[in-house]
Amino acid sequence: MSKENTTEQGMTRFERRKASTRARIVEAAERLMRDRGVEAVTIQDITDAADVGHGTFYLHFKTKGDVLRPLIEHLSNQVHARVDRAAHGETDPALRMSLGIRVVVRAIAEDPLWSWYARSGASFSELVAQMGTPPAEDMRKGLKSSRFDIANLPATVSFIDGAFVGMITSLNEGADVDETADMTAELVLRVFGVPAKEAAQIARQPIEIH
Amino acid sequence: MSKENTTEQGMTRFERRKASTRARIVEAAERLMRDRGVEAVTIQDITDAADVGHGTFYLHFKTKGDVLRPLIEHLSNQVHARVDRAAHGETDPALRMSLGIRVVVRAIAEDPLWSWYARSGASFSELVAQMGTPPAEDMRKGLKSSRFDIANLPATVSFIDGAFVGMITSLNEGADVDETADMTAELVLRVFGVPAKEAAQIARQPIEIH
Repeated sequence: MSKENTTEQGMTRFERRKASTRARIVEAAERLMRDRGVEAVTIQDITDAADVGHGTFYLHFKTKGDVLRPLIEHLSNQVHARVDRAAHGETDPALRMSLGIRVVVRAIAEDPLWSWYARSGASFSELVAQMGTPPAEDMRKGLKSSRFDIANLPATVSFIDGAFVGMITSLNEGADVDETADMTAELVLRVFGVPAKEAAQIARQPIEIH
Repeated sequence: MSKENTTEQGMTRFERRKASTRARIVEAAERLMRDRGVEAVTIQDITDAADVGHGTFYLHFKTKGDVLRPLIEHLSNQVHARVDRAAHGETDPALRMSLGIRVVVRAIAEDPLWSWYARSGASFSELVAQMGTPPAEDMRKGLKSSRFDIANLPATVSFIDGAFVGMITSLNEGADVDETADMTAELVLRVFGVPAKEAAQIARQPIEIH
């Protein structure tokens, strides 16, 4: 391979072109889906708008839902930044985690692409992998400081991951957003061993984005 | 329609034949899947064994996973009976619920068809609808007797439904069956407001099938 074909990041010209085509498909998909709603957009619409062939689409993605993945990752990073600002200056891991959960649940509820993705018939494991366990660091701190009482961490994480998706699904079925966000935080704190009364009080603290 | 074509249950001959074809497909599918493993069986194998055409299969089911539904319902009924026997004579709703959850989690783990169904990429809502909330009656009793402390019942049910599927998924990823069953019970009790120490003790009571 000639030196001219390779960038400093080690991408060949072929790889660069492939990445740029992929980005064009994702941008077209986002624009169309935010415009018309996810349901109304076909793969044909996306390939027309991105000016690529049908076959090219399938080189990069298997389904319409797959195109949403990089968008969801991007949203997810933005929301993690918002969580950091909401928890800024707070030291209690229980309060930090509660704020994080409430911000994330609201963010998913408010973004039509994210909500669609969550209710799109994606498998449970996919949903969990996509959403992750946002407040992982506060969880570690809470464990160290014995703020939390967790006998089996992997089992507890599986339990919470599932519960989180359960709550997102209830949003799609019409549950109130703020109440769902607060209840998610409250019940996660209970799972982590925070006494019921205290969990309720922590999960109702005002949220301030600093 | 002539009277001769209708049974006392109000089924026409056409409907009876359709139901019997469906049953034959389900039986063939179960036999093959228990024999060879779910993955190894194709729709073609099933239609061959049931002696029906490919088109006939699709009159009744959309996918291979769909054929498992009636089998899972049947297993589910059997397990509910086992739960009743395990909880026989116990009056504490927390202990009854804990026993019920542990029996159900073990049953799902032990049946290869049920486990496959749970990890088959079925959507989250489908999984929840299939599994239901087994200990619904004990939940009602626990609420009435203030054994449980639940501020928002629908939200709590969504949370538990999701958590339950999360735990089943962890089984498919290699988590220990008995430990997963016990942890599911323990964490559900925490969610219902049972203090952490007491929840741990209740979830470790021996299971006796009466």
